[in-house]
Amino acid sequence: MDHTELRHADGHRIRTLCRAGKWAGPTAGLALGYVQANLVIVPRDLAFEFLLFCQRNPKACPLLEVLDPGSAEPQSVAPGADLRTDLPKYCVYEDGRLVDEPTHLRQWWRDDFVSFLLGCSFTFENALLEAGLPLRHIEAGCNVPMYCTTIACQPAGVFAGPMVVSMRPMLPSQAIEAVRICSRFPLAHGTPIHFGNPESIGIRDLRQPDFGDPVELRANEIPVFWACGVTPQAVAMKACLPFLITHKPGHMFVTDLRDAALES
Amino acid sequence: MDHTELRHADGHRIRTLCRAGKWAGPTAGLALGYVQANLVIVPRDLAFEFLLFCQRNPKACPLLEVLDPGSAEPQSVAPGADLRTDLPKYCVYEDGRLVDEPTHLRQWWRDDFVSFLLGCSFTFENALLEAGLPLRHIEAGCNVPMYCTTIACQPAGVFAGPMVVSMRPMLPSQAIEAVRICSRFPLAHGTPIHFGNPESIGIRDLRQPDFGDPVELRANEIPVFWACGVTPQAVAMKACLPFLITHKPGHMFVTDLRDAALES
Repeated sequence: MDHTELRHADGHRIRTLCRAGKWAGPTAGLALGYVQANLVIVPRDLAFEFLLFCQRNPKACPLLEVLDPGSAEPQSVAPGADLRTDLPKYCVYEDGRLVDEPTHLRQWWRDDFVSFLLGCSFTFENALLEAGLPLRHIEAGCNVPMYCTTIACQPAGVFAGPMVVSMRPMLPSQAIEAVRICSRFPLAHGTPIHFGNPESIGIRDLRQPDFGDPVELRANEIPVFWACGVTPQAVAMKACLPFLITHKPGHMFVTDLRDAALES
Repeated sequence: MDHTELRHADGHRIRTLCRAGKWAGPTAGLALGYVQANLVIVPRDLAFEFLLFCQRNPKACPLLEVLDPGSAEPQSVAPGADLRTDLPKYCVYEDGRLVDEPTHLRQWWRDDFVSFLLGCSFTFENALLEAGLPLRHIEAGCNVPMYCTTIACQPAGVFAGPMVVSMRPMLPSQAIEAVRICSRFPLAHGTPIHFGNPESIGIRDLRQPDFGDPVELRANEIPVFWACGVTPQAVAMKACLPFLITHKPGHMFVTDLRDAALES
């Protein structure tokens, strides 16, 4: 299956290909204009605390849909879809340890699983690109650089830990425009949480991201930082849950929602 | 204690008076400019389903803060406050039946209680008044009329039922302005959910509200309907929980937040 051809596919097409085992790659640049989502699955007895964590940290964990225990069909954002098969690839953790990276969850699924779909930066990145703002990691064809910070999330039960942020270099005038545009997308991480001095949020060296790839900071550009959807996964992994499933980073769930549907 | 004198009090003052047993009346018109909140308290084993219900029905149930199990201090919206004593009056339900209307919860409190604070229409009403829009029930000195509708809330576990709405009569041009203003307050019920024909949402007679008082509809005015904070209480009561505590209607929790803090 050709990546370019899937640029203008819809969410249903991407999910059908995943379900049939015909797409197991990253989803960046696929089905442009359709909202993509982070997936976190926890057992029912931890679902309240994880939902509370999301409610308390809406910039890092913007909730698109939370499914009933045992349900794999996101009736709001993608009716008819099946979260057990419709993502390209998953990460399965037992006691905080990665034990499998399957392309479906048929053998892993349990009736006490609660699935959370969280907004993703692709939504606001599309809006920034449409406004003519630069996205260095896309120009460079690499992953966005992500960093662990010293900003503490509001804890909830076993879920606690620092916020992970993504960084995009911009001129001050571009950063201002980006704040304006992103304020329209609270369900896709919303406005940046910081710009300028990385050390004031505990980042020592921009050239050494904790996840993703480093990107160039050019003359007069400042680093602009957004709360990142890796945060809930990092926090859930840190909590060493007996059982946890997420999408494989970059291998998102593509919904039926258009980006504009997330605008506030 | 004089009502007029408390108009310009702050949230802390109102809560201190409630705690000392010196105020047990309604809070409408008190501490103007401070966010007031609906209170719902459920046992821990129902907290996930109730939180899920709120997440799925954000217009009726806009979450301001959800407390840790057993905690009575809303650290985000009113640090130092105590939800067991700082409201004027409470309603205590056992098996869906009202069993007490105490002025504090000292004898009822349990360590497995989870408290939910939800946004309230006072916030957007203040914004509408400041914009010069009419609020008939305030002019008439009565309660806003509220109606059960045929709009089904998105259910979550035992929590299911119809949306309750409040109604304010307006000219079309005023209704348009109200939509614009209320869109800034998603945490205070946000934009209206309907205007015009009451029957299309299952309301047979505007003169017979299910809660509150009827108000006059004048020439050229249309009824404008907002999702109402009574919804979660109605749904929780309908679920016949073994145990449920709410504020007494109109007797809200006054936070430290300014109305502007809820603006998106």
